[in-house]
Amino acid sequence: MDADLAALTPSEARARFRAGLVRPTSGISAGWAQANLIIVPRSHAFDLLLFAQRNPKPMPLLGVLDAGETSSELLSGGDIRTDVPKYVVYEDGVPVAEPTSITEYWRDDLVTFIVGCSFTFESALTVGGVPIAHQGQGVNVPMYRTSVRCAPAGSVSGPLVVSMRPVPAAQVADAVRITSRYPAVHGAPVHVGAPDELGIRDLDTPDFGDPVTIPEGHIPVFWACGVTPQAAVMESRPPLAIAHAPGHMLITDARDSDYLIP
Amino acid sequence: MDADLAALTPSEARARFRAGLVRPTSGISAGWAQANLIIVPRSHAFDLLLFAQRNPKPMPLLGVLDAGETSSELLSGGDIRTDVPKYVVYEDGVPVAEPTSITEYWRDDLVTFIVGCSFTFESALTVGGVPIAHQGQGVNVPMYRTSVRCAPAGSVSGPLVVSMRPVPAAQVADAVRITSRYPAVHGAPVHVGAPDELGIRDLDTPDFGDPVTIPEGHIPVFWACGVTPQAAVMESRPPLAIAHAPGHMLITDARDSDYLIP
Repeated sequence: MDADLAALTPSEARARFRAGLVRPTSGISAGWAQANLIIVPRSHAFDLLLFAQRNPKPMPLLGVLDAGETSSELLSGGDIRTDVPKYVVYEDGVPVAEPTSITEYWRDDLVTFIVGCSFTFESALTVGGVPIAHQGQGVNVPMYRTSVRCAPAGSVSGPLVVSMRPVPAAQVADAVRITSRYPAVHGAPVHVGAPDELGIRDLDTPDFGDPVTIPEGHIPVFWACGVTPQAAVMESRPPLAIAHAPGHMLITDARDSDYLIP
Repeated sequence: MDADLAALTPSEARARFRAGLVRPTSGISAGWAQANLIIVPRSHAFDLLLFAQRNPKPMPLLGVLDAGETSSELLSGGDIRTDVPKYVVYEDGVPVAEPTSITEYWRDDLVTFIVGCSFTFESALTVGGVPIAHQGQGVNVPMYRTSVRCAPAGSVSGPLVVSMRPVPAAQVADAVRITSRYPAVHGAPVHVGAPDELGIRDLDTPDFGDPVTIPEGHIPVFWACGVTPQAAVMESRPPLAIAHAPGHMLITDARDSDYLIP
């Protein structure tokens, strides 16, 4: 990681992306919360908001903008249409484009959901001495569609998607304790060990992200994942939906520590 | 409190109310979470759900039913139209009736919001040795409209309503610590001392509930209150809204302890 990028304020980082920088956001603006993005038409917004209310672990809301609104206190002076490095546009649940700006897709009836991201709790795990295997191995976190169904809401339904981090057996309790204090960024694990029980056949073939090697004596620990709303969009097929591209998050003006509960 | 009522299971308590019992629910089904209720037409439900998302301290959601749905896992085998001892019906923001059943008002487009109630954290305060003055004085908790505005959401806006409990100065920190662990039932105080700063002129004339005497050496501590959505309904004037009558709560199948965070 470029130390300069780590030191950028959120508004400086967003300005870089707005000006054309395209790269994953891991490590940029250290200490500031990054977020998942999902945007749907107003006609589908109630169902998606209800889906979030019913599934707070995979879809913890940091903010919801009014229909047509393109900024908020989470991205002060910014523009949701240009300030994320890369987007995915879905039509009828099918990804059709990965633009670096969504200005041409924007409509006044679009409602933006800003969703917590596990980058925030990974920082806390690191501070707590829990190793992050995929960071050490230089890959993206592996993510899996599970056989667990989210609670549906109107037209929106889909599988729970989880991320997996191998944790030394002696530190599983620490990992639970630390992440449970960040419910706005997925919180405590949904499962510890036994991937079969989640319908995961092979940890080496994740549905999203990269496989990681599980070191001897480590237990696979599963957290609810912010890709879940995108999986729900793919299944529920709204006419239009827009999300961030994997790893290319919104950098917000909230500090990671803002989401630490007492 | 009748010890028999304290020992009722939630479903037994709801059956009593369904059969015609009308009385405040304080002390009934000890250990089980009681909840505020607010019901609006589907046409207003997105705005109210967004209002809750933006104002989680006064309107912490325990559950939201589908339009027309009359039961949920929070009231297993129950019926939201009959299982609360008393309701308030609002038309255009004006209370027009206080029925003991809302069957005659029911429509298939009504969406029910179940909202956390401070009874849950009062139990925790008592266990933690913090005295609850209004209970000792045998009155309802005093509640005040404040000069603080909630974050608006579409057509829904209104003032923050707070409840006040006098706390011995040496136990204010305990009261903060204990209630902050129950974010689903309003969580930590929004204000400690200085009622003027909230626009409260006279603690002896609450807008809802009863005045309490503040003992020497006690500090008035203010928590966000579940009456806030009703104040928003009065201000925002949807054509129809239905709430529980003050103190006549929904007794749910969730345990108070379910809402304790780690």
